[in-house]
Amino acid sequence: MFSSKMLEMGKHGSVIREIAEHSKMRKAEIGDDKVFDFSIGNPSIPCPEKFNEVLIDLIKNTDPVELHSYTAAQGDPVTRRILAKNIEKKYGFKQTDSLIYMTCGASSSLSIVFRALLEEDDEVIAFAPYFPEYKAFSENAGGILRVVGCNPETLYPNFEELKQAINHKTKAVIINSPTNPTGSVIPKETLEKIASTLTQASSELGTHIYIVADEPYREVVYDGVEVPYVPTIYPDTVVCNSYSKSLSVPGERIGYIAISPKSYMAEDFYYAICGAGRGMGYICAPSLLQRAIAICDTLPCDVSSYDKNRRLLYNSLTEIGYTCVLPQGAFYLFVKALEPDANAFAMKAREEELLLVPSDSFGIKGWVRIAYCTSYGQIEKSIPAFKKLYESYKVK
Amino acid sequence: MFSSKMLEMGKHGSVIREIAEHSKMRKAEIGDDKVFDFSIGNPSIPCPEKFNEVLIDLIKNTDPVELHSYTAAQGDPVTRRILAKNIEKKYGFKQTDSLIYMTCGASSSLSIVFRALLEEDDEVIAFAPYFPEYKAFSENAGGILRVVGCNPETLYPNFEELKQAINHKTKAVIINSPTNPTGSVIPKETLEKIASTLTQASSELGTHIYIVADEPYREVVYDGVEVPYVPTIYPDTVVCNSYSKSLSVPGERIGYIAISPKSYMAEDFYYAICGAGRGMGYICAPSLLQRAIAICDTLPCDVSSYDKNRRLLYNSLTEIGYTCVLPQGAFYLFVKALEPDANAFAMKAREEELLLVPSDSFGIKGWVRIAYCTSYGQIEKSIPAFKKLYESYKVK
Repeated sequence: MFSSKMLEMGKHGSVIREIAEHSKMRKAEIGDDKVFDFSIGNPSIPCPEKFNEVLIDLIKNTDPVELHSYTAAQGDPVTRRILAKNIEKKYGFKQTDSLIYMTCGASSSLSIVFRALLEEDDEVIAFAPYFPEYKAFSENAGGILRVVGCNPETLYPNFEELKQAINHKTKAVIINSPTNPTGSVIPKETLEKIASTLTQASSELGTHIYIVADEPYREVVYDGVEVPYVPTIYPDTVVCNSYSKSLSVPGERIGYIAISPKSYMAEDFYYAICGAGRGMGYICAPSLLQRAIAICDTLPCDVSSYDKNRRLLYNSLTEIGYTCVLPQGAFYLFVKALEPDANAFAMKAREEELLLVPSDSFGIKGWVRIAYCTSYGQIEKSIPAFKKLYESYKVK
Repeated sequence: MFSSKMLEMGKHGSVIREIAEHSKMRKAEIGDDKVFDFSIGNPSIPCPEKFNEVLIDLIKNTDPVELHSYTAAQGDPVTRRILAKNIEKKYGFKQTDSLIYMTCGASSSLSIVFRALLEEDDEVIAFAPYFPEYKAFSENAGGILRVVGCNPETLYPNFEELKQAINHKTKAVIINSPTNPTGSVIPKETLEKIASTLTQASSELGTHIYIVADEPYREVVYDGVEVPYVPTIYPDTVVCNSYSKSLSVPGERIGYIAISPKSYMAEDFYYAICGAGRGMGYICAPSLLQRAIAICDTLPCDVSSYDKNRRLLYNSLTEIGYTCVLPQGAFYLFVKALEPDANAFAMKAREEELLLVPSDSFGIKGWVRIAYCTSYGQIEKSIPAFKKLYESYKVK
């Protein structure tokens, strides 16, 4: 009766949502403060005060017809010009505003980009561990997500597997740095190695493979780590940005797509993106938010409380004995499960009221993701539970 | 290199956009007040003051983390409960909140519904004249838009053609009342006739054909005309609503999908909608706007200035000699072209600086659409131009 693909996608929501349901139920049973829910990447710090002030100022001082009217489908021209200038200032990379397309956040950016790029059965490559929704967006576009594995200990991408995965159907490779679920920032050298692999493969196949740089966590970084701007490394790049995490406004759905002016057939790519946005009924990104972004794009992202959480959690868990990836960005800690089956480990953690996301849906076995965008107090209180969990494995 | 369908859709934007480009250019040449741009359905009245007050109040008095956080993909549960109650109050129809899905406006609603319903090459039926983007949304979903014609004089749907158009691939019929581009409100008797045709066809084919009620103009009606609520007439109905026109906030992208609880496999339909929204990267409708709608859903839509425009335009044009459909809703006047080729007629109108949309892209020949959601002054000033245009045809 319905699209079988969509029905399947709707019935079997993400694992994270199932955990959220459990969390709600359990909190009702034993109290909010007794459940240590580390499942969801929902920012826990408020947006900058300036952001709300800008919204109020726009509402009070703009002609309401103009403020709430449709913008061009590609986005408000003033906002796009400002973003192009800011990209140049921030990364020393010349971005033309005519290749920027305002969107309802990173997920809509990705879904639009895949719809624009893929014909039926075309392929998109993601490196494990990867954000599970890439699969939904690829499949919506009629494509296939192909996952390239990694060294199970270092999580470093397997380049041999990457070379083997590329074929004449490969349209894009997703780079997500800082990475969800590990918090790693991909170093320049690795990006250069990926770039040269793609350049060589493209030339051998007589095609162009795009890098889709999914960057919602670009501003959420620690210890002054530098996140290389992918278009400076590889010409055929399209950047998908979002303000959900950097400004703590995930519900407002605002972000953008920026096609590198150096990329192959950039103008046609842009037309295809306009077509995809049109077909998917996007019309335009929310107009009030577009106008706010023109002013708030360069507001600093205050990561100090995430950083405090990160240090507490990483230090406490490694001290107990857990193996963890040190996060350089985002707000996730990737921790090795204490048994090979991450699902069984996560279920065992539930006995201590610890809600962790097993790594299977991220395309890798044997790890769990802890989202530490929670309160410091929750993390403090959860440490004994992590300790008890660890000890329950030692006793065996 | 790209999806050929999306590239095509992006390169060949709507006719209306081409006219908008011409308008901008011409206004720069001869001055804003010399060009009578009647092409775009962008509301010209401000949103109710209350709406902006609600936004400011929400921003000032809600915890910012809560206010701007992700809602459930289906939408904020409080908003959905309120909307379900309001539907019952307004139309005497019991709507369950668990079958309401908040969206980024009517276009996203339609695109999501078609994606949920259609398998490759499934068909959606629209009655000419119809809103051209139905084609884009159907094709994005892999489907085909099939157009049922009308009597070229009365514009009354051709029921014989409807019966012939239905086959085992037919998944849905779109009802758009008040209609863009004619402003007609489809009477109850016509809806009942469509309903019985679909019931009979469904039973013969052993299937269920849904009515997709596209209702962005439901609140924009004149002379107290009643717009029947389709779910009270036909069980297999899904309503696509939007606040773009009723609250004059088209840029903010907020609306909803309501599946009739009486419809066939309503729950699976809802799952498929959740899947389609997920695959297309919608995540959730803008959270601030969802919360505002919970309060503003029942704000009255003040159509008095559109009504003044309507009367002036309809009376003036019929007095000159034009044949017009009397609009009962929306803000469009459908006028018979003075020669068989509406495109040629619209080009001739341009000589008088009148920008009208030829009816070809609405699936019918020989008419033009005039969007009168402009200033009263523009309409007043344009009347002599309409007169001159009319006379230029009489002289021949």
